[in-house]
Amino acid sequence: MIKGVLLDLSGTLYQGQEPISGALAAVERLSAAGLPLRYVTNTSRTPSHTVLKKLQRLGFPIDRDQLFTAPRAVYEFLCERELHPYLLIHPELEVEFADLPSGEPDAVVVADAAEAFSYANLNRAFRLLLEGAPLVAVGDNRYFRGENGMNLDAGPFIRALEYAAGCKAQFLGKPDPAFFHAAMAGFGCGANEVLMVGDDVSADVNGALEAGLQGALVKTGKYRDGDQESLAGEAWVCSDIRHVVDRILE
Amino acid sequence: MIKGVLLDLSGTLYQGQEPISGALAAVERLSAAGLPLRYVTNTSRTPSHTVLKKLQRLGFPIDRDQLFTAPRAVYEFLCERELHPYLLIHPELEVEFADLPSGEPDAVVVADAAEAFSYANLNRAFRLLLEGAPLVAVGDNRYFRGENGMNLDAGPFIRALEYAAGCKAQFLGKPDPAFFHAAMAGFGCGANEVLMVGDDVSADVNGALEAGLQGALVKTGKYRDGDQESLAGEAWVCSDIRHVVDRILE
Repeated sequence: MIKGVLLDLSGTLYQGQEPISGALAAVERLSAAGLPLRYVTNTSRTPSHTVLKKLQRLGFPIDRDQLFTAPRAVYEFLCERELHPYLLIHPELEVEFADLPSGEPDAVVVADAAEAFSYANLNRAFRLLLEGAPLVAVGDNRYFRGENGMNLDAGPFIRALEYAAGCKAQFLGKPDPAFFHAAMAGFGCGANEVLMVGDDVSADVNGALEAGLQGALVKTGKYRDGDQESLAGEAWVCSDIRHVVDRILE
Repeated sequence: MIKGVLLDLSGTLYQGQEPISGALAAVERLSAAGLPLRYVTNTSRTPSHTVLKKLQRLGFPIDRDQLFTAPRAVYEFLCERELHPYLLIHPELEVEFADLPSGEPDAVVVADAAEAFSYANLNRAFRLLLEGAPLVAVGDNRYFRGENGMNLDAGPFIRALEYAAGCKAQFLGKPDPAFFHAAMAGFGCGANEVLMVGDDVSADVNGALEAGLQGALVKTGKYRDGDQESLAGEAWVCSDIRHVVDRILE
């Protein structure tokens, strides 16, 4: 019995600029059934308000409160601890943190920063870490395919800073269990009654299982034949979000 | 009975621009005694010919053949395998590799590159590694003190590339056993008859012990009280190079 649902975005609800076939109607049905619902993503370059606008433009029934992103989790982490971040992030993401109170940096936030991963910026982050600033990271991917070939993602630079300063990064985002628990805050049910739906067997599904949620792997987006063999426990395997919703509402 | 000697440079023979007290006379005595002798260093920014000139200017009795540097070991590694390197190194060191035949890069060489550790350059290196190019590294230090504070050394960037490409770097330099063995080539004696003298308990002395040489730790340069407690085996501990030579010639 599923009493709440977490939905991954890219590859599960849309691909590029198009909704995945049947996804709009499926999410509408879920929404109409009154199940608490949140959209969760590790987006590392796009601020929350842009993600929200995209989902609305594509036609998904989403309120602002239903979107939970890794950068937003970092924002809340910083607010709660009254930390002032040095941001080693993509310029497009900076707006996410624009209304934090200013002050001498006492935390380092690393996301996929692309060209902003310069020697000078990495040194600045490193010196703060040496002084004891916490290292907070969005995502830990190794690389991604860009227009001009493979590009280094945040993971390698996080490894570099950890090695240099002798510290460990705190990851906020899938597959961190705390991220799933924060995403289902207010659902009013147990973790084992919440289903996380996604196309990434590791970050989405195994992460959710690890956090005590249920998981559904969809065969869209980045799914590749045989991915379900990497499942860390019992999970749903469905051709797409439409079939996941069919099964939830059965 | 010592039949050959390897000498570390900075902190053992000189400090900054000054010979360490008694070092010149000590090396002269060693030289006059006819013991085969080589000067070994992991220098990561300075080409061999500049190191040679500095030693000669300071008054040390050194021929070109007696100098063995990590960048030179990389040069020889590349020549033997007919590899064309992509150089992620400091601009000042580029001259060391200037006479290698040109060609499409099929190896990556990483040393302390400072500002040359840009996102674009790291991506270029990463893509070569994905294609199977070997990763050859000079030094693995975490950081060093520069004029404007602590700076990231080559080590963190090597970790980043290893993590991204799923490969392991091959280190040429102290404390790699192969480096010590190459440095004593032509000595005509066994490794256990060769003494490595240095101020770095880890790279110089423990590295030498690991390679089957004898080791002498001097209490000059970067030596700190208690460093001898980190010795990995039996080694000499002497106040300076003068006392090491006294003991060799006893």
